[in-house]
Amino acid sequence: MPDARYPTGAAVRAACRHGHWNGPTPGLALGYVQANLVILPRSWAFDFLLFCQRNPKPCPLLDVTEPGIPEAKLVAPGSDLRTDLPAYRIWREGELDSETDNIVRYWRDDFVAFLIGCSFTFEQALLAAGVPVRHIEQGVNVPMYRTNIACRAAGAFAGPLVVSMRPLLPALAVKATQICSRYPRAHGAPIHFGDPAAIGIRDLHQPDYGDAVTIRPGEVPVFWACGVTPQAALIHARPPLAITHKPGHMFVTDWKDADLEGE
Amino acid sequence: MPDARYPTGAAVRAACRHGHWNGPTPGLALGYVQANLVILPRSWAFDFLLFCQRNPKPCPLLDVTEPGIPEAKLVAPGSDLRTDLPAYRIWREGELDSETDNIVRYWRDDFVAFLIGCSFTFEQALLAAGVPVRHIEQGVNVPMYRTNIACRAAGAFAGPLVVSMRPLLPALAVKATQICSRYPRAHGAPIHFGDPAAIGIRDLHQPDYGDAVTIRPGEVPVFWACGVTPQAALIHARPPLAITHKPGHMFVTDWKDADLEGE
Repeated sequence: MPDARYPTGAAVRAACRHGHWNGPTPGLALGYVQANLVILPRSWAFDFLLFCQRNPKPCPLLDVTEPGIPEAKLVAPGSDLRTDLPAYRIWREGELDSETDNIVRYWRDDFVAFLIGCSFTFEQALLAAGVPVRHIEQGVNVPMYRTNIACRAAGAFAGPLVVSMRPLLPALAVKATQICSRYPRAHGAPIHFGDPAAIGIRDLHQPDYGDAVTIRPGEVPVFWACGVTPQAALIHARPPLAITHKPGHMFVTDWKDADLEGE
Repeated sequence: MPDARYPTGAAVRAACRHGHWNGPTPGLALGYVQANLVILPRSWAFDFLLFCQRNPKPCPLLDVTEPGIPEAKLVAPGSDLRTDLPAYRIWREGELDSETDNIVRYWRDDFVAFLIGCSFTFEQALLAAGVPVRHIEQGVNVPMYRTNIACRAAGAFAGPLVVSMRPLLPALAVKATQICSRYPRAHGAPIHFGDPAAIGIRDLHQPDYGDAVTIRPGEVPVFWACGVTPQAALIHARPPLAITHKPGHMFVTDWKDADLEGE
């Protein structure tokens, strides 16, 4: 899965900017932090920022841009969020309108961009520590589920906590908890393990997003807060216009995974 | 210093609300999280929220209210931020205008209140672990200094990082670092120790706020990000109207110090 053509965040961004790459980003620029993107008009930005602040496990903010400035000055100086992702989704009134490989023609002077941490960071740390990640082993997307846990609302933004699931033997689930606790800005420690019904999940074999994975004898399902949560809140809020990355087609920053460690 | 009359956050708030207490809050409701207060009109709230998000060590947000609603729903359900602090400061154009014991007559439908973690939480944890806290020993206010480290600006909000200082023997400074790392929402681990000049402090005996304390042989000064930082940013931004707590006269929440532990 590692791809040596684009070894850094800057290399991935340049390839996207010049039309040389429009595919998914897992496996690119290994060790560099990848981020979810949400763009909203300034009039919606306070409520969304508040939603993220109130729900830091699913929505760990890495960077928020100044209104109208499409540069992620903190995590990727010199970047251009209008061109530097492989693929974008345009949302109108909370419904998917179209996909595109750049948003130059959509950009407005009142747009604010939010970059939100993603699970790739802790998955690399798990693999490095010998903790298996089933969906990577099986070459599929991680299974994700809507739970019956409500996020804390902020203005129009509200909705259920969405979780991702990775099956683990109990001792490895403990190890994964220790490792992920070091990455609060990449969803942090799990929010639940064991009985799916306890958090409102009816059938592990029928994820709401992504693909089902095999759960082997002795393994328990372990659940982490997931970056799809803010997208669900966006659909609920129905802003006139919003732009996000296309799932799996992330913004690759200049930060290294180790930069997300600690407090 | 502990004061048994008001053993909980709710008891302190009720005493303030009914005019029975208008003094400082250290020593009240021990074990309950106390918070800095900043109130701004909604039109200034996005930039201030962004300032806090970009500077989490000096400005760890605990709760942000809905515009016009004076209740801290997350950290103190049923509270009234207009009456439940012992003393407030009114700021106009970045300058101190007056002090008052309630802000009922100042309240507006567009006000947003920010509650920001404070060092009392980690000081209790230090004392519990046998790490001495000099200004408490000496019965004075903690010494605070403006540094040459710039905060990350957000809109009009900008300014220097302000730090508090506690002198410690090196082995105890290490212990303090470990303990404070557990409280990222109460300023977390120190940002510097040793040479004050390295962060732009000329004279430890002349703090910019608070009182000087004794540094004993073998001790090093240890510096933490301080909750006065957002107040300095507020003065810099000069909003037409802002309201804060009076220093040392904090909002006492329903959260216990242990609730601030972890990620």
